[in-house]
This record gives sequence, C-alpha cells and structure tokens, in this order.
Amino acid sequence: MSILDKINGKADLEKLNKQELNDLTNELREVIVQTAQTNGGHLSSNLGVVELTTALHRVFDFPKDKLIFDVGHQCYAHKLLSGRKEKFSSLRKSGGLSGFPDKDESEYDLFTTGHAGSAIATGLGLCAARDKAGENYTVIVVVGDGAFSNGLSLEALNVCDKKPKNFILILNDNGMSISKNKNGFYNYISKATANKGYLKFKKGVKKVFGNSFVTKFLKKCRGAFKRLFNRNNYLEYFGFKFVGQIDGNDIQETVKILSRVKNVAKNKAVFLHVNTTKGLGHEQAETHAEDYHGVGVELKVGSGDFSNALGDKLCQVIEKDKSVVAITAGMALGTGLKKVCETHPQNFVDVGICEEYAVTYSAGLATGGAKPIVAIYSTFLQRAYDQLVHDVCLNNLPVVFCVDRAGLVGADGKTHQGVFDLSYLLHLPNMKVLAPSCIDELNRAVDYALTLNCPVAIRYPNGQVNGVANDDKEFCEWQKVCEGEDFAILAVGPRMLNLAKECVKNGLSATVYNARCVKPLDKGALNEIKDKKIITLEENSLIGGFGSLVSQYYQNNNERVCIKSFGVADKFVEHASVQEQLAQCGLTVENVVKSAKE
Amino acid sequence: MSILDKINGKADLEKLNKQELNDLTNELREVIVQTAQTNGGHLSSNLGVVELTTALHRVFDFPKDKLIFDVGHQCYAHKLLSGRKEKFSSLRKSGGLSGFPDKDESEYDLFTTGHAGSAIATGLGLCAARDKAGENYTVIVVVGDGAFSNGLSLEALNVCDKKPKNFILILNDNGMSISKNKNGFYNYISKATANKGYLKFKKGVKKVFGNSFVTKFLKKCRGAFKRLFNRNNYLEYFGFKFVGQIDGNDIQETVKILSRVKNVAKNKAVFLHVNTTKGLGHEQAETHAEDYHGVGVELKVGSGDFSNALGDKLCQVIEKDKSVVAITAGMALGTGLKKVCETHPQNFVDVGICEEYAVTYSAGLATGGAKPIVAIYSTFLQRAYDQLVHDVCLNNLPVVFCVDRAGLVGADGKTHQGVFDLSYLLHLPNMKVLAPSCIDELNRAVDYALTLNCPVAIRYPNGQVNGVANDDKEFCEWQKVCEGEDFAILAVGPRMLNLAKECVKNGLSATVYNARCVKPLDKGALNEIKDKKIITLEENSLIGGFGSLVSQYYQNNNERVCIKSFGVADKFVEHASVQEQLAQCGLTVENVVKSAKE
Repeated sequence: MSILDKINGKADLEKLNKQELNDLTNELREVIVQTAQTNGGHLSSNLGVVELTTALHRVFDFPKDKLIFDVGHQCYAHKLLSGRKEKFSSLRKSGGLSGFPDKDESEYDLFTTGHAGSAIATGLGLCAARDKAGENYTVIVVVGDGAFSNGLSLEALNVCDKKPKNFILILNDNGMSISKNKNGFYNYISKATANKGYLKFKKGVKKVFGNSFVTKFLKKCRGAFKRLFNRNNYLEYFGFKFVGQIDGNDIQETVKILSRVKNVAKNKAVFLHVNTTKGLGHEQAETHAEDYHGVGVELKVGSGDFSNALGDKLCQVIEKDKSVVAITAGMALGTGLKKVCETHPQNFVDVGICEEYAVTYSAGLATGGAKPIVAIYSTFLQRAYDQLVHDVCLNNLPVVFCVDRAGLVGADGKTHQGVFDLSYLLHLPNMKVLAPSCIDELNRAVDYALTLNCPVAIRYPNGQVNGVANDDKEFCEWQKVCEGEDFAILAVGPRMLNLAKECVKNGLSATVYNARCVKPLDKGALNEIKDKKIITLEENSLIGGFGSLVSQYYQNNNERVCIKSFGVADKFVEHASVQEQLAQCGLTVENVVKSAKE
Repeated sequence: MSILDKINGKADLEKLNKQELNDLTNELREVIVQTAQTNGGHLSSNLGVVELTTALHRVFDFPKDKLIFDVGHQCYAHKLLSGRKEKFSSLRKSGGLSGFPDKDESEYDLFTTGHAGSAIATGLGLCAARDKAGENYTVIVVVGDGAFSNGLSLEALNVCDKKPKNFILILNDNGMSISKNKNGFYNYISKATANKGYLKFKKGVKKVFGNSFVTKFLKKCRGAFKRLFNRNNYLEYFGFKFVGQIDGNDIQETVKILSRVKNVAKNKAVFLHVNTTKGLGHEQAETHAEDYHGVGVELKVGSGDFSNALGDKLCQVIEKDKSVVAITAGMALGTGLKKVCETHPQNFVDVGICEEYAVTYSAGLATGGAKPIVAIYSTFLQRAYDQLVHDVCLNNLPVVFCVDRAGLVGADGKTHQGVFDLSYLLHLPNMKVLAPSCIDELNRAVDYALTLNCPVAIRYPNGQVNGVANDDKEFCEWQKVCEGEDFAILAVGPRMLNLAKECVKNGLSATVYNARCVKPLDKGALNEIKDKKIITLEENSLIGGFGSLVSQYYQNNNERVCIKSFGVADKFVEHASVQEQLAQCGLTVENVVKSAKE
C-alpha cells in the first residue's frame, strides 16, 4: 500500500517520520508526472511545490485554515492531499477534476482561479471578513514570482501598510515565471533579503557531511537559522514580518519554519520567501522548465497551428520592417513568439504577467512611431480591457492584437475560456476585429492589420487548423465558401467554418460565408443574404458577440430578417475536450441542422 | 498687458526674471481659479502644479520633448502655456478645450487621457520607439502619488530593472491622492528618501531670513542641495537615479533642479520626487483639497442625486447589518461614501486608485461571509473587468457593485463616459444588472441586491434626479409607467425614462416601461409587447447593450418583432453638457418621435 493512500488529513501527515515524508513526496511526484503526461496539464510548477504543499498540509489545519494558490496551476499535490487522490486520474477530463482550484470541487479550494495576481487580494479580503466576524483561522497565500509582478498583486501588496495578523504570504520563488524574471521589486526583495550566510552554511554542511549525524548536530546549532527570523525587516513598509529565504524543496526545513511562522503570524503578517526548483524530480522538466510548463497534446505548440504560424509570420514581418515590435506578457512560448525572441531579440519584449502594461506600453510605442504587435491569450487580455478602451482605442492607435486561445480551450476549462473577447472588443470605438479561418488567412490578417492605421484585434483558437482559404478578395470582404438555396451560414473562425461546411454536407442547402472580418461586418454580404434564413456560428458568448452584431445591423436598417445564432450560452464552460465543449454549446452538425430545419 | 499674454514658448519663459516668473505663476493661478469656478473642473490638483509645470516649460523644449501627465486632470497650466490661453475660457464646453490632455487639441498633448496609472507605461513605450528610431528627445512623465499606487503604474515601475535614458519620472507628491495615502511603496520611498536635512535647512533659512540677500547667499553654499543628487540610490533596483525630495512650489528651485536632472537623465533615467501643495493659492482648495478636487455644478454631490442617496442608504444598511462593508477606490466623496467613512469607519474601505484590488478584495470579503458593496464610477470599473469575470462572476460571489456616473457624464468628456458598462457587464455569467430610475428605486435596488446570492451591478448616472417610481412590484419586474396603442418604449435609467414620457406627451401612443432590471430581462413584459413597435432607450453603446439584449431575446424565441434601439453610436462622445451629448446621440424627443413615426 502506498503512503499516499494512508493520508487523509493533517493527523496522518503528522504521524510520518522523515523517511516516510520523503517517500510521500516521491510518490506525489510520480502520480503528478504520470497524470500530467497522460491527461496534459501543468508539470514543472506542480513538481516544484510538492514539498511546500506537503509541509503546509502538515503544519496547518485545512480547510479550517485557508490556503489560496495564486493562478492555481500548482495545485495538484494539494488536490492529492485533500481527499481527491481517487479522482486524480480524471484530471482535466469532462466531469473529472479541474486542473485548477475549483470551489465546486472541494471545500479545500476556496476560490476557482486560473489567472495570475488575485490571491493576495482575495486573501486580504478573507482576513478582513474573518476579523469582522471574530473568527480565528490562518490565511495562507502562495504566489509565484511570476504572478508577483502582476499589477493586481502589487496593488494588494502595496495598498495598506498594516496587514492583518494570521496572514502568511508565501513567495514561491523559482527564479522564473514562465520566462525569466527581471523586475525591480523582485530584484529588490531577492537581493536585499538573500540570507546568503544561511544558504551557504546549509549547502556546505550537506556537501561535507551528507545527511549524517554531524549534519543534524550542526543544524541544531543553527545560529544562521535563527537569523532567518531576526533580521532587518525590509518589508516593514508593507506591513510584513519578513522570513527567508528558505529552501522550499527541503521538507524538513520547510515544516520546521512553517511551524514557527504560524506562531509569528499571530502577532504580525508574515512574508515568507521560499526558493523552489521548477520541475524538480523530472529531468527534462527541471532543465527545460519553460517547455514543460504545460504538457499534453492540446497545449503543445507544433506545426500547423496558429500560434506557431504567428511566430513564423512575425519573424518574416520584422525581417522586412524593423519598426515592428512583438510583445507578449509571459506567454512567449504559448503564443509562438519565442521564435521572434530567438531570431530578433531587439524586436521582442516579454513584460511578464503584466497584460495591462503590455497594452499601454504598446500605446506608447505606437505613438512614438513603432509598430507594436501584442500577442496575448483571449482570457488574459481581459485583464487589459480598460487599457484597450482608454489607451489604445480612445487614442485610435495602430496596435495589432493577436488574441490567441480565442474560443473554447478544452481541458484548461472555465478559467481559461476565450469566449468573451468578441463581447469585450466589438463595442470599442475604432477597433477592428478579424477572425482568420486558416493559417494562410492569419498571415493575410497580420499584413492587412499593419496597413490599417487603427487598433486591430486578430482572434484565433489553439490547436491544429485545416483548410486554406485562398481567395483573392480584400480581407475585409467575407469569403463565400459555397452557395445554397434556403439558408445562409455566417461562420467565425476555423472550427465554425468547418461546422458550416459539415452542415451543408448533411443536407442543409446553404450559402456559407467565412466571416473573417467581424468588425466591420461585410455589409455587401449581409445585404445579399437578407431573404434567406440566416444562421450565425461563433465560439463566443451569444451576448454582445457576432450574432448580436449581425442582428443589430439588420435592425438598424429596418430589415426584418430571420436569424438564429449559435454560440456560447450565458454560463461558464467547464473543462472537457474541445469537441465535448462544442457539443455542450450546441455547436454540432446535428444540433444546427435540426434547429435550422425547425 | 499680462505676463501670460507674452508667453509663446520656452524662449519667452527663459527671458523672465524671478519676479516675473512669480507674477506669471500668480496669473496662471488666477486664470485657473476663475475658469474652474465658472466652467467646473479640477481645481486643487491644477493649483498644486503651477510652478512645476511652468518650470518644465522653461527647462524643456516641448513639443520636441514629450510631457505626459498621468490622469491629466492637472494639465490646465500646461494648456495655458502651450498656445491655448485664448481658448481657455471654453474649457469643458462643447467645442471648447477638454479638461484633460487631448491629442486632437494640440501637439503638446501626446495622449488623450483621463484614467490613472497609464503615464509611466506610455512613457516607457515612447522611449523604446524613440530609441529604436534613433531620435533624441526627453520623455517626462508626471505622476501623482494617488496614481502611483495603481497597478498599472506599479507594473510599469517594476517591469524592468533597466530604464531608458532621457526618461524622467516625476512623482508629484501632495501627500494625498483624492483621499489620504497609506500604502507601502509610497511610504517606503517617502521615508527612505526624505531629504530631511535639506528640507529643514531650507525651511529654517526661509523662516529666519525670508527672501533676503542672506538666504540667497546661504543657498549658494548648498551642501544639502548637492546631496539631493549624491545619495544612496534607493531606486536602483527599478533602474532609476533618484533625486529629491524637492519643493515643487518653489519655482526657482524647481527650475534649477530640473535643469540638472535634464543632464543627469542623459546617462540614466531619473526619478524625481517633488512635493507640492494641492490647492495652493486658494484658501479653501488648500485646506479642503478633497472637497475642491472637482468643482462645478455637475460634479458636486448634493441632495437629490444618486451618489448622495447611496451614502445615506449605505449608512442605514450598515446600521442594521454590521457585516456590510462599503468599498471604494479613491472616490469616497464622488460616490457619496464619505458619509459612510465618517459614521461607520469600521465598515468602510478606500483602497485608493486600485479598482482591480477593490473588486478582488471584495471577492475575498464575500467568501469570508461579509457583504461587500463596491462603489466605483462606470468608466473606472472598466479597469477591473477581468476581476469581475474571474474573481467575482466565475466564483458567483454576492458582491454588489454601485456603478456611479453610468451613462453620459457631460463636461468630463470622452475619457470619463460611462457608456460601456452595460456592454462589459451583460455578457458576464451570473451577473445581474439593475438600473434604478429614481432615488427610491436606488434604495430598493440596494435592498434587493443584498437578498440575491450572486453578483449584482446597480448602474445610475450623476446629477439631479426627479420622479418617484413608487410601485409595489418585485424589483425585477419592469414598472409599466403608462399604456398606449402603437409603440412600446423600454427605458433604462432616469433620463431615458423621462425621455420616454416626453415622447408620449409629444404624441407617441406608447406603453412605457421603466426597464429597471436590465439582466435578467422582464420576459413577461417583453412577451406582452411583442406585437407593438418596440423602442429601446439607453445611455450606453448600442453594441452589446440593452437594445441588443432585447433584440436577442426575441430572436431566440423566433419572434420577428420590430425594434428600434436608441443609444450611443460606435464612437467616443466629446465633452459638452449632458443635454448636448444626449442630442448628439439622438436621444431627444424630436429624434425618437420622428424616427418612430417613420
């Protein structure tokens, strides 16, 4: 029987001796590697926090105490230790465990999350509510160094110089977010607080004596250890007692320090700086942490997908025009921009997980005469909505946005769905919105966008793409794919275009348009089809999306047409395969054909 | 002839002797006070930066060099010194000067702005474009201590430990944003860098010798002055040479230091910490800077408006239920919450200009069992769109949002219009949206929202409100105001409801509904009127707004109805009176009646 099977809470963890604790963390690592490689998911980040998570579960009393992981992509060990090991093989599958914390899944998950930067703020709100209600629990927030530089994290850190008691902020520092960290505050904390003496002492002892009796004896002397707690408090201005840095992959040490931190926090909020190694225990994941950040078929960037094609395209564009600057916000690999970084580093900027800054910085670039192209996932660009309105659209600046992972995203689930971007982009004055249906069209969309002297968003899903549009019309005119009698189908994006074609194959007599330019609409096409029964297909919320815009066009022109829109209903779409999610949204041949015939 | 009349650029400023410079700043102050009191606008902030602005215009060469004011509500002296003094009396009037920087108005205004936090990011983008193009100008960014704590500012400050040369970041520190500042980073900078020796020396000299020859002589000795530039560089981690603190209301000193800073910046970006006094030169504005932040009829909070009523209502609510917490983000006075702060300080939080934090903090509060009510202007809540999606709606938390200044805002103009909130709120799953038409309904809306166990947004405009709804239906049912034959008018909010009533008075035979619950729609009412010609009225973008939602409802039910929606077209609405803006949007009796009859 495995050790993990014996663990049903804090009491079981407390019973484990050192060897058993080590065995447990090894076992957790095995399960994580196996499951992530089978089901896809985040690997490196989860491997890095196995010891920290185990130590937290041993020292604190969850769910009475509250544990909040920022982003949440590092929650696998937490799930395994909080009653979900039997279901763990269902990770990221339809009806199975979510790859992120999910409040509907377990009382150990307080918030459903997936975006970076929210944990410190939610933790502080929780403490305020606790203190108001006179309750008595500890709130622990674990934030990676990547999320730490996000504006929301910084606001929360900064907002008040008195932080609540029984609040522990753990900076999980693996020295890189998805890419390398190079920001001021992080450097300040790291350099100003590096407990060099302690870490050197510890390493030296290990090197010379291994895990021998001498080591244990020397550890007891630990003058340096004490200095972890008794030092100049560099974070006093932020209301924290500072502790660290400590080795978060040494479970003995981490347990010991967390126990003391728990007591210290009774008098003052604690900021604990923990060093961990991303991907620890998996050779490739450790040495290529960025490549192994997310694994699994759906997440991988390969040939034949939009992200990969964007990287190639931007390299070509920059080759010809050195005023083009490619920008991303901690998503260099996922957006395909890593190629640009490698071949044209002078024309590439990764700002880290700072979507707001990425967008406003681009407004500055465009004002200065450069040509910014910003690649951010649909779900993360939400973070920069006001910057789109105020800094880019109000100033009518020529910034091109490559909105990756638009539409349904599959196993990452509800926190990552790209099903709102049409709704948050279409009502912005001056903004044009394009939706290429194949890689050829993505390339044309980028070229076309660069000729327009205004903000342009190009949205596209992840995954493999089939088909070549190959027509000679202007990009802003919709491509007529086939003609039919009764219906007109207007499809946005590659998957919807395929769906439209399948509907025709399955007996719907329809003219099909590839609605590759969502704003402005192709009025010529719309006028041509007004006597047909119109079907709109989109991977976006039906509220404020493409169908709604089409409907409004006819209404403004006093045309009483018959329209039926298919898209995402007014609810969050859970993790499942993209095909399953499409089916849930009624975006299947059967459903569209049946509804159309009714 | 006034001195201001003689100033047409840097060269004229350089000719002025000390006395003339002083006279100029006095004159600028007079013009600002007079104009702001006549036309409304920002007073305290503009008075505080008169000397700093004058000094900048004397030392730098605008528009070749670039000056960016964060927010931009402190740009009046800048406008007066950059060729706009003749037009200054038209400030905030239709067709006149904007109350904020406006790139369409002058080449001296590089960005059109009105929201806080964007200047450092745009400045850095501009520097990057400049360096890429091999151009050679200095970029100066002026950020108030309030905007400094905003997440976007912090991201920009933090994002990179190498800042560009010829970049000067001026922290304009008046020791309060709209309310008092109490955040970590600000305190850190202030305390760590306070040049106490210098400031004390300076004050002492002034006290004893006044502006005498002795003072001037002693100033020349200025050992302390030199130390302004030669000190431990606390901001090295952020890539800046730090200079300060200096007295930004002493024009001689400011000119002298800016001249040196200009040279220092040739080698390294400079962070200049300037102290100014908000409202200086206007007794009430100086001593009651918060009350005089914005002046003028339209901005004042008085009896009979929603903001004022909200303050009263929340005091009552908290009186009965101590778990309610009122939260705002630097808008305590404008949202009416100052009353709550005064009477129930334990149930009030002002987080400063951190809208993102305000929303996510509330998600934490709600999870912990408190009842957060967040009051933020419609235009500023844009900043927290992702927090609404990810932290509140995805977690389906009972947070009540009081969305003030929704709809057209009058003289503040295009940067402050509250005409997007329906479009960014309606497509959020779990979110309910209410739009009370009078104060009585605002009170009912708050009570109703607190009974719902989900996110609720209550949106309302500023200004005086007439009328009492006074019906006994559930709040989610629309109030039928009158009945008519041919038309049904669905009106959102007080001004639209008045417009609907006026249309009836002017001959439209219409059933009028007060559509006080925008999401969910009142299906009963919609089904009742489907055979009439339907008119929707809203102060929101027509894309993704109320009309679009109504239209979609019928479409989903295969009802082919005749609808005409009135609202804000797909462009930004310039400053003018609310009446003029309504007319521009076609939201007038004449236009609605005429269009309806067609």
